[in-house]
Amino acid sequence: MAAAPKGAAVALGRPSGDPTTNSGDNSAMNWLDEVKWDAQGLVPVIAQEATSRDVLMFAWMNREALQKTAELGRAVYFSRSRGKLWFKGEESGHVQTVHEIRIDCDNDVVLLQVSQLGHEPATPGSPSQSIACHTGRHSCFFSVYKDGAWKITEPVLKDPDSIYK
Amino acid sequence: MAAAPKGAAVALGRPSGDPTTNSGDNSAMNWLDEVKWDAQGLVPVIAQEATSRDVLMFAWMNREALQKTAELGRAVYFSRSRGKLWFKGEESGHVQTVHEIRIDCDNDVVLLQVSQLGHEPATPGSPSQSIACHTGRHSCFFSVYKDGAWKITEPVLKDPDSIYK
Repeated sequence: MAAAPKGAAVALGRPSGDPTTNSGDNSAMNWLDEVKWDAQGLVPVIAQEATSRDVLMFAWMNREALQKTAELGRAVYFSRSRGKLWFKGEESGHVQTVHEIRIDCDNDVVLLQVSQLGHEPATPGSPSQSIACHTGRHSCFFSVYKDGAWKITEPVLKDPDSIYK
Repeated sequence: MAAAPKGAAVALGRPSGDPTTNSGDNSAMNWLDEVKWDAQGLVPVIAQEATSRDVLMFAWMNREALQKTAELGRAVYFSRSRGKLWFKGEESGHVQTVHEIRIDCDNDVVLLQVSQLGHEPATPGSPSQSIACHTGRHSCFFSVYKDGAWKITEPVLKDPDSIYK
Protein backbone atom coordinates (compact mmCIF):
# COMPACT_ATOMS: atom_id res chain seq x y z
CA MET A 1 0.00 0.00 0.00
CA ALA A 2 1.33 3.41 -0.91
CA ALA A 3 2.24 5.65 1.99
CA ALA A 4 -0.29 8.28 2.95
CA PRO A 5 0.85 11.70 1.81
CA LYS A 6 2.01 13.68 4.80
CA GLY A 7 0.92 17.22 5.35
CA ALA A 8 -2.38 17.15 3.54
CA ALA A 9 -4.20 16.37 6.77
CA VAL A 10 -2.89 19.63 8.15
CA ALA A 11 -4.22 21.50 5.17
CA LEU A 12 -7.68 20.02 5.69
CA GLY A 13 -7.47 20.77 9.39
CA ARG A 14 -7.99 18.42 12.25
CA PRO A 15 -10.96 18.75 14.56
CA SER A 16 -9.81 21.39 17.01
CA GLY A 17 -11.14 19.46 20.00
CA ASP A 18 -9.35 16.32 18.93
CA PRO A 19 -5.74 16.06 20.07
CA THR A 20 -5.31 12.60 18.69
CA THR A 21 -3.76 11.97 15.30
CA ASN A 22 -5.61 8.80 14.52
CA SER A 23 -9.17 7.54 14.26
CA GLY A 24 -11.69 7.18 17.06
CA ASP A 25 -14.98 9.07 17.06
CA ASN A 26 -15.51 11.69 19.70
CA SER A 27 -17.78 14.63 20.31
CA ALA A 28 -15.65 16.95 18.20
CA MET A 29 -16.31 14.74 15.17
CA ASN A 30 -19.97 15.70 14.84
CA TRP A 31 -19.31 16.96 11.32
CA LEU A 32 -19.76 13.29 10.47
CA ASP A 33 -23.18 13.31 12.11
CA GLU A 34 -24.27 16.11 9.81
CA VAL A 35 -23.84 13.87 6.78
CA LYS A 36 -27.10 12.28 5.67
CA TRP A 37 -25.97 8.69 5.29
CA ASP A 38 -28.25 6.54 3.16
CA ALA A 39 -30.01 3.37 4.33
CA GLN A 40 -26.76 1.44 3.82
CA GLY A 41 -24.78 4.02 5.81
CA LEU A 42 -23.14 5.36 2.67
CA VAL A 43 -22.77 8.67 0.88
CA PRO A 44 -21.95 9.17 -2.82
CA VAL A 45 -18.60 10.83 -3.53
CA ILE A 46 -17.35 12.66 -6.63
CA ALA A 47 -13.58 12.98 -7.12
CA GLN A 48 -12.46 15.96 -9.23
CA GLU A 49 -8.85 16.57 -10.21
CA ALA A 50 -7.86 19.93 -8.73
CA THR A 51 -5.54 21.00 -11.56
CA SER A 52 -7.35 19.77 -14.69
CA ARG A 53 -10.78 20.03 -13.03
CA ASP A 54 -11.71 16.78 -14.74
CA VAL A 55 -14.23 14.62 -12.92
CA LEU A 56 -12.20 11.46 -12.39
CA MET A 57 -14.52 9.01 -10.72
CA PHE A 58 -17.51 8.40 -8.52
CA ALA A 59 -17.53 6.12 -5.48
CA TRP A 60 -19.06 5.69 -2.04
CA MET A 61 -17.92 6.32 1.52
CA ASN A 62 -19.17 5.13 4.85
CA ARG A 63 -18.55 7.09 8.04
CA GLU A 64 -15.17 5.51 8.67
CA ALA A 65 -14.01 6.14 5.10
CA LEU A 66 -14.88 9.83 5.27
CA GLN A 67 -13.24 10.18 8.67
CA LYS A 68 -10.05 8.51 7.42
CA THR A 69 -10.06 10.62 4.27
CA ALA A 70 -10.04 13.77 6.39
CA GLU A 71 -7.43 12.41 8.79
CA LEU A 72 -5.03 11.04 6.20
CA GLY A 73 -5.53 13.61 3.45
CA ARG A 74 -5.97 10.82 0.93
CA ALA A 75 -9.11 9.32 -0.54
CA VAL A 76 -10.50 6.32 1.31
CA TYR A 77 -13.70 4.89 -0.14
CA PHE A 78 -15.99 2.06 0.84
CA SER A 79 -16.07 -0.75 -1.69
CA ARG A 80 -19.64 -1.99 -1.96
CA SER A 81 -18.56 -5.09 -3.90
CA ARG A 82 -15.90 -6.07 -1.37
CA GLY A 83 -17.79 -4.74 1.66
CA LYS A 84 -14.78 -3.00 3.18
CA LEU A 85 -12.69 0.15 3.16
CA TRP A 86 -10.86 0.83 -0.08
CA PHE A 87 -7.72 2.90 0.29
CA LYS A 88 -7.64 4.26 -3.27
CA GLY A 89 -4.29 3.30 -4.79
CA GLU A 90 -3.56 0.49 -2.35
CA GLU A 91 -2.91 -1.90 -5.23
CA SER A 92 -2.25 0.39 -8.17
CA GLY A 93 -0.26 3.06 -6.33
CA HIS A 94 -2.69 5.55 -7.89
CA VAL A 95 -3.35 7.36 -4.64
CA GLN A 96 -5.55 10.45 -4.51
CA THR A 97 -4.21 13.23 -2.30
CA VAL A 98 -7.20 15.19 -1.01
CA HIS A 99 -7.00 18.98 -0.93
CA GLU A 100 -10.58 19.81 -0.16
CA ILE A 101 -13.75 18.05 0.97
CA ARG A 102 -17.11 19.62 0.19
CA ILE A 103 -20.66 18.57 0.92
CA ASP A 104 -23.79 19.59 -0.95
CA CYS A 105 -26.87 21.54 0.10
CA ASP A 106 -28.68 18.40 1.24
CA ASN A 107 -25.65 17.05 3.11
CA ASP A 108 -25.89 13.84 1.16
CA VAL A 109 -23.20 14.08 -1.54
CA VAL A 110 -19.45 14.68 -1.07
CA LEU A 111 -17.13 16.37 -3.58
CA LEU A 112 -13.35 15.91 -3.29
CA GLN A 113 -10.66 18.03 -4.91
CA VAL A 114 -7.75 15.68 -5.44
CA SER A 115 -4.32 15.23 -6.93
CA GLN A 116 -4.32 11.94 -8.78
CA LEU A 117 -1.01 10.12 -8.48
CA GLY A 118 0.11 7.53 -11.01
CA HIS A 119 1.46 7.66 -14.55
CA GLU A 120 2.20 11.34 -15.15
CA PRO A 121 0.81 14.00 -12.85
CA ALA A 122 -1.44 16.62 -14.34
CA THR A 123 0.22 19.78 -15.59
CA PRO A 124 -1.80 22.96 -16.06
CA GLY A 125 -2.47 23.82 -19.69
CA SER A 126 -2.22 20.29 -21.11
CA PRO A 127 -4.56 17.31 -20.90
CA SER A 128 -4.08 15.42 -17.68
CA GLN A 129 -2.27 12.09 -17.99
CA SER A 130 -2.96 10.86 -14.48
CA ILE A 131 -4.79 7.55 -14.12
CA ALA A 132 -7.83 7.26 -11.88
CA CYS A 133 -9.66 4.44 -13.68
CA HIS A 134 -9.05 0.73 -13.23
CA THR A 135 -9.09 0.41 -17.03
CA GLY A 136 -5.84 2.40 -17.15
CA ARG A 137 -7.58 5.53 -18.41
CA HIS A 138 -7.36 9.02 -16.99
CA SER A 139 -10.99 9.27 -15.93
CA CYS A 140 -13.72 6.70 -15.44
CA PHE A 141 -15.97 8.84 -17.66
CA PHE A 142 -14.44 7.86 -20.99
CA SER A 143 -17.64 6.96 -22.86
CA VAL A 144 -19.65 9.68 -24.58
CA TYR A 145 -23.20 9.45 -25.87
CA LYS A 146 -23.47 10.12 -29.59
CA ASP A 147 -26.05 9.17 -32.19
CA GLY A 148 -27.80 6.68 -29.96
CA ALA A 149 -24.72 4.88 -28.62
CA TRP A 150 -21.94 5.17 -26.07
CA LYS A 151 -18.57 5.72 -27.75
CA ILE A 152 -15.22 5.32 -26.02
CA THR A 153 -13.26 8.51 -26.57
CA GLU A 154 -10.31 8.31 -24.17
CA PRO A 155 -7.15 6.24 -24.61
CA VAL A 156 -5.79 3.61 -22.25
CA LEU A 157 -2.67 5.27 -20.80
CA LYS A 158 -1.31 2.14 -19.18
CA ASP A 159 -2.14 -1.56 -19.50
CA PRO A 160 -4.23 -2.53 -16.46
CA ASP A 161 -2.30 -5.82 -16.28
CA SER A 162 0.83 -3.83 -15.51
CA ILE A 163 -1.01 -1.73 -12.91
CA TYR A 164 -2.55 -4.59 -10.94
CA LYS A 165 0.10 -7.22 -10.46
CA MET B 1 -41.79 25.83 -17.72
CA ALA B 2 -38.94 27.29 -19.70
CA ALA B 3 -38.73 26.29 -23.32
CA ALA B 4 -36.32 23.53 -24.20
CA PRO B 5 -33.28 24.93 -25.93
CA LYS B 6 -33.45 24.08 -29.62
CA GLY B 7 -30.52 22.66 -31.44
CA ALA B 8 -28.74 20.99 -28.57
CA ALA B 9 -30.41 17.68 -29.37
CA VAL B 10 -28.77 17.84 -32.77
CA ALA B 11 -25.39 18.36 -31.14
CA LEU B 12 -25.88 15.28 -28.97
CA GLY B 13 -27.10 13.33 -31.95
CA ARG B 14 -30.28 11.41 -32.34
CA PRO B 15 -30.30 7.65 -32.64
CA SER B 16 -29.61 7.09 -36.31
CA GLY B 17 -32.30 4.46 -36.62
CA ASP B 18 -34.93 6.66 -35.03
CA PRO B 19 -36.72 8.97 -37.45
CA THR B 20 -39.05 10.30 -34.77
CA THR B 21 -38.35 13.51 -32.95
CA ASN B 22 -40.00 12.56 -29.72
CA SER B 23 -39.87 9.81 -27.10
CA GLY B 24 -40.84 6.20 -27.54
CA ASP B 25 -38.40 3.38 -26.94
CA ASN B 26 -37.32 1.34 -29.91
CA SER B 27 -34.55 -1.00 -30.84
CA ALA B 28 -32.22 1.86 -31.73
CA MET B 29 -32.39 3.12 -28.14
CA ASN B 30 -30.43 0.25 -26.64
CA TRP B 31 -27.86 2.69 -25.29
CA LEU B 32 -30.37 2.99 -22.45
CA ASP B 33 -30.22 -0.76 -21.89
CA GLU B 34 -26.46 -0.51 -21.40
CA VAL B 35 -26.94 1.67 -18.33
CA LYS B 36 -26.80 -0.31 -15.11
CA TRP B 37 -29.89 1.03 -13.39
CA ASP B 38 -29.99 0.46 -9.64
CA ALA B 39 -32.68 -1.49 -7.78
CA GLN B 40 -34.93 1.59 -7.95
CA GLY B 41 -34.34 1.95 -11.68
CA LEU B 42 -32.14 5.02 -11.16
CA VAL B 43 -28.64 6.15 -12.01
CA PRO B 44 -26.65 8.88 -10.22
CA VAL B 45 -25.87 11.96 -12.32
CA ILE B 46 -23.18 14.62 -11.91
CA ALA B 47 -23.73 18.00 -13.60
CA GLN B 48 -20.56 19.94 -14.42
CA GLU B 49 -20.59 23.45 -15.88
CA ALA B 50 -18.81 23.24 -19.23
CA THR B 51 -17.21 26.69 -19.09
CA SER B 52 -16.16 27.01 -15.43
CA ARG B 53 -15.80 23.23 -15.00
CA ASP B 54 -17.39 23.61 -11.58
CA VAL B 55 -19.36 20.63 -10.34
CA LEU B 56 -22.79 22.18 -9.91
CA MET B 57 -24.98 19.45 -8.51
CA PHE B 58 -25.74 15.78 -8.18
CA ALA B 59 -29.09 14.19 -8.90
CA TRP B 60 -30.71 11.02 -10.20
CA MET B 61 -32.25 9.92 -13.48
CA ASN B 62 -34.52 7.08 -14.41
CA ARG B 63 -34.64 5.69 -17.94
CA GLU B 64 -37.20 8.20 -19.13
CA ALA B 65 -35.26 11.13 -17.68
CA LEU B 66 -32.04 10.12 -19.44
CA GLN B 67 -33.88 9.55 -22.70
CA LYS B 68 -35.55 12.96 -22.49
CA THR B 69 -32.25 14.62 -21.58
CA ALA B 70 -30.70 13.27 -24.78
CA GLU B 71 -33.73 14.14 -26.88
CA LEU B 72 -34.24 17.66 -25.57
CA GLY B 73 -30.65 18.65 -24.94
CA ARG B 74 -31.59 19.86 -21.47
CA ALA B 75 -31.23 18.17 -18.10
CA VAL B 76 -34.23 16.16 -16.98
CA TYR B 77 -33.79 14.40 -13.65
CA PHE B 78 -35.98 12.10 -11.58
CA SER B 79 -37.03 13.62 -8.27
CA ARG B 80 -36.92 10.91 -5.65
CA SER B 81 -38.84 13.04 -3.16
CA ARG B 82 -41.64 13.86 -5.60
CA GLY B 83 -41.49 10.53 -7.43
CA LYS B 84 -41.63 12.07 -10.89
CA LEU B 85 -39.60 13.65 -13.68
CA TRP B 86 -37.96 16.93 -12.79
CA PHE B 87 -37.33 19.21 -15.74
CA LYS B 88 -34.48 21.19 -14.18
CA GLY B 89 -35.46 24.86 -14.27
CA GLU B 90 -39.18 24.24 -14.69
CA GLU B 91 -39.93 26.53 -11.73
CA SER B 92 -36.77 28.59 -11.39
CA GLY B 93 -36.03 29.08 -15.08
CA HIS B 94 -32.53 27.82 -14.26
CA VAL B 95 -32.46 25.35 -17.12
CA GLN B 96 -29.34 23.30 -17.85
CA THR B 97 -28.51 23.00 -21.54
CA VAL B 98 -26.69 19.70 -22.04
CA HIS B 99 -23.65 19.62 -24.31
CA GLU B 100 -22.34 16.16 -23.54
CA ILE B 101 -23.48 13.01 -21.76
CA ARG B 102 -20.85 10.60 -20.47
CA ILE B 103 -21.08 7.32 -18.61
CA ASP B 104 -18.44 5.74 -16.41
CA CYS B 105 -16.49 2.51 -16.70
CA ASP B 106 -19.13 0.53 -14.80
CA ASN B 107 -22.02 2.04 -16.80
CA ASP B 108 -23.64 3.13 -13.56
CA VAL B 109 -22.87 6.86 -13.22
CA VAL B 110 -23.65 9.66 -15.69
CA LEU B 111 -21.68 12.90 -16.12
CA LEU B 112 -23.26 15.87 -17.90
CA GLN B 113 -21.47 18.88 -19.34
CA VAL B 114 -23.97 21.72 -19.09
CA SER B 115 -24.55 25.39 -19.53
CA GLN B 116 -26.37 26.60 -16.44
CA LEU B 117 -28.93 29.28 -17.24
CA GLY B 118 -30.16 31.77 -14.66
CA HIS B 119 -28.68 34.86 -13.03
CA GLU B 120 -25.57 35.62 -15.07
CA PRO B 121 -24.12 33.04 -17.45
CA ALA B 122 -20.60 31.88 -16.84
CA THR B 123 -17.84 33.79 -18.58
CA PRO B 124 -14.41 32.21 -19.06
CA GLY B 125 -11.75 33.62 -16.77
CA SER B 126 -14.02 34.83 -13.99
CA PRO B 127 -15.92 32.94 -11.30
CA SER B 128 -19.19 31.65 -12.60
CA GLN B 129 -22.30 33.48 -11.42
CA SER B 130 -24.83 31.01 -12.72
CA ILE B 131 -27.24 29.48 -10.20
CA ALA B 132 -27.74 25.72 -10.03
CA CYS B 133 -28.66 25.38 -6.35
CA HIS B 134 -32.12 25.83 -4.86
CA THR B 135 -30.51 27.96 -2.12
CA GLY B 136 -29.71 30.60 -4.75
CA ARG B 137 -26.03 29.70 -4.83
CA HIS B 138 -23.91 28.89 -7.86
CA SER B 139 -23.20 25.28 -6.92
CA CYS B 140 -24.81 22.89 -4.47
CA PHE B 141 -21.31 22.16 -3.08
CA PHE B 142 -20.92 25.34 -1.06
CA SER B 143 -19.85 23.81 2.27
CA VAL B 144 -16.20 22.97 2.87
CA TYR B 145 -14.75 20.78 5.60
CA LYS B 146 -12.30 22.61 7.83
CA ASP B 147 -11.11 21.99 11.37
CA GLY B 148 -13.76 19.41 12.13
CA ALA B 149 -16.75 21.31 10.75
CA TRP B 150 -18.55 22.17 7.53
CA LYS B 151 -18.21 25.86 6.67
CA ILE B 152 -20.33 27.67 4.10
CA THR B 153 -17.97 29.43 1.72
CA GLU B 154 -20.15 30.53 -1.21
CA PRO B 155 -22.53 33.50 -1.31
CA VAL B 156 -26.23 33.44 -2.07
CA LEU B 157 -26.45 35.11 -5.49
CA LYS B 158 -30.22 35.49 -5.49
CA ASP B 159 -32.87 35.20 -2.78
CA PRO B 160 -34.59 31.81 -3.24
CA ASP B 161 -37.92 33.48 -2.47
CA SER B 162 -37.52 35.50 -5.63
CA ILE B 163 -36.54 32.41 -7.63
CA TYR B 164 -39.45 30.19 -6.60
CA LYS B 165 -42.60 32.28 -6.78
